Amino acid sequence: MSFKVYKESTECMARTGELITAHGSIKTPVFMPVGTRATVKTMTSEEVEALGTEIILGNTYHLFLRPGHELIKEAGGLHKFMNWSGPILTDSGGFQVFSLADMRKITEEGVEFRSHIDGSKEFLSPQKSMEIQMALGSDIMMCFDECAPYPSSREYIEKSVTLTNKWARICRETVPLDYKNQVFGIVQGGFYKDLREKSAEEITEIGFDGYAIGGLSVGEPLPLMIEALEYTSPLLPGDKPRYLMGIGTPDYIFEAVQRGIDMFDCVLPTRVARNGTAMTSFGRLVVRNAKYKKDFIPLDPECDCEVCKNYSRAYIRHLFNVDEILGPRLLTIHNLHFMLRLVEKIREAIEVESFLDFKREFYKKAGIEI
Amino acid sequence: MSFKVYKESTECMARTGELITAHGSIKTPVFMPVGTRATVKTMTSEEVEALGTEIILGNTYHLFLRPGHELIKEAGGLHKFMNWSGPILTDSGGFQVFSLADMRKITEEGVEFRSHIDGSKEFLSPQKSMEIQMALGSDIMMCFDECAPYPSSREYIEKSVTLTNKWARICRETVPLDYKNQVFGIVQGGFYKDLREKSAEEITEIGFDGYAIGGLSVGEPLPLMIEALEYTSPLLPGDKPRYLMGIGTPDYIFEAVQRGIDMFDCVLPTRVARNGTAMTSFGRLVVRNAKYKKDFIPLDPECDCEVCKNYSRAYIRHLFNVDEILGPRLLTIHNLHFMLRLVEKIREAIEVESFLDFKREFYKKAGIEI
Repeated sequence: MSFKVYKESTECMARTGELITAHGSIKTPVFMPVGTRATVKTMTSEEVEALGTEIILGNTYHLFLRPGHELIKEAGGLHKFMNWSGPILTDSGGFQVFSLADMRKITEEGVEFRSHIDGSKEFLSPQKSMEIQMALGSDIMMCFDECAPYPSSREYIEKSVTLTNKWARICRETVPLDYKNQVFGIVQGGFYKDLREKSAEEITEIGFDGYAIGGLSVGEPLPLMIEALEYTSPLLPGDKPRYLMGIGTPDYIFEAVQRGIDMFDCVLPTRVARNGTAMTSFGRLVVRNAKYKKDFIPLDPECDCEVCKNYSRAYIRHLFNVDEILGPRLLTIHNLHFMLRLVEKIREAIEVESFLDFKREFYKKAGIEI
Repeated sequence: MSFKVYKESTECMARTGELITAHGSIKTPVFMPVGTRATVKTMTSEEVEALGTEIILGNTYHLFLRPGHELIKEAGGLHKFMNWSGPILTDSGGFQVFSLADMRKITEEGVEFRSHIDGSKEFLSPQKSMEIQMALGSDIMMCFDECAPYPSSREYIEKSVTLTNKWARICRETVPLDYKNQVFGIVQGGFYKDLREKSAEEITEIGFDGYAIGGLSVGEPLPLMIEALEYTSPLLPGDKPRYLMGIGTPDYIFEAVQRGIDMFDCVLPTRVARNGTAMTSFGRLVVRNAKYKKDFIPLDPECDCEVCKNYSRAYIRHLFNVDEILGPRLLTIHNLHFMLRLVEKIREAIEVESFLDFKREFYKKAGIEI
């Protein structure tokens, strides 16, 4: 048993648990910072660990192209290459190759595509994706799937679900059944309830160590996402971790946890950091703004991160203003701390049966209305 | 007495000592990392401190333009603004404004120039420079001087020395005589021995807390620099710290220390770091090179820095290859550690009368020939 549920809320589907991997165990719900190209942007692995990060995500597509999974294997795996000793989840590369639009061709066997770097012709298939993820030494490997865009026709989604389910079977068969090699299946089906049911049925029948909901947060309005989440999440087995891919912002995280999601990842906290935006308990703060020029208080006076302890808004604004690398760095540290602490507080709230209260308070203070 | 000499070599002018400032004392010889725009590029102040840095340098010209010395004063001074609690030496801004070439006009009163950022018309004078440095809260302020380029005619240098000496008097008079406000005079005179003598005589007559040698390492060949250093250094009072501005590379540091220099600063370790070059005990290593692609050993196997403990050449090369900020960061940490450790070892060698032996060994291993 690699997953244990500790506490289930009586008010909603929120729950706490623990996921055990070959590189340590993770408390859930968990937020996974994204380390696209063998680094969480701007950060050393030691810093990522010091922030209390329990698991990071690596991108198969990017690492396959540069430096190449074979080089990483030769280095002793991704953990050793980037000096990260905790768990790593890798995506399948599917999302990125499908995003290449005109530069890719889908067949039953896989996806032929051109590298976004040098235009070279490459090929990814369910089998190849799993082989790459194994070469990286991933603790949790994701099935190679098609993440359909929004909006997509029912006909398109129907064909896509059939392909994804076929590929899921190949993925499962490619990886040896071994606790060191966890594989997560992905349920697709767009915003069609019966297609989600069909996908969930087939994917859970194959049997995986965890289940992800794919194809949400792809541009649809939030209420539509919540609706899809509400009918999809209960389709996934309760004794396995549920992962909502590419989520997100604090509000998306609250809504997902409420509906039984245990894991999520998003580049948002690190990406907006590099653009000069801090995530705070009272909403986003664009530190580049002129109004912070002489604002000598911390980004978030309630935050206990190293950045808020040591530096002012005025200083960080100055760094962005003169294009110093330290600017993006400080906001990255702050934003990751903010997200990790938020999820920690969510876990605490679930434990004491106050999740919905905590959510209400948080939304009120941050000015979030749903 | 703000300066004490501890040990003088019997083989050469090398010496160890201690310089006391309002923000703590510094062991000399000392290397000062450059924090141009209120940050040592890519580094937090806590990291700079953790490396064992004793004093940093701030640039008056850059801070005057952005964010402005008044804003920094309002923030509580440069120390508080950038969260650096150790000593800070500030340059006068002279070097930068004189480098503006066509964009500046020199008069007896000062230098009118156009900002390199927005072309706005600005003015720096000896008095203004000291006022800015006081607003920044600098521990060691440098006189506003003219640093003449190489080569310059004897006539030009003669006039320049006269102007620099006149300005030195104004600088000294502008700053209250107070241990919290140390002011260093600068001896100029190009590569003309008698002009160096004239400058040294007038500058030491005014009386400063320390003396810098300006106008060296401005493009001249190394033997010429050493010659000028040899006749200029003894002209400076032995009971005050001697500072060689804009130095540098390990070989320049050895040559300077041998001739009685106590302090030096240079952007080189941090600048070459950002271009992908590591400083090592066996010379420079350009980590971007293809030959390091699968080189899984540390930058310098003899180095005990955090980067060499945790990361390989192949990993750092990958980071540069994909333009990750962590690449320049890791090399900055390594190079600063290298320089600070080198100067520490130089101090230890002086203490046990083995400076010249240590220099010979270092040169041999690093492939330096002079």
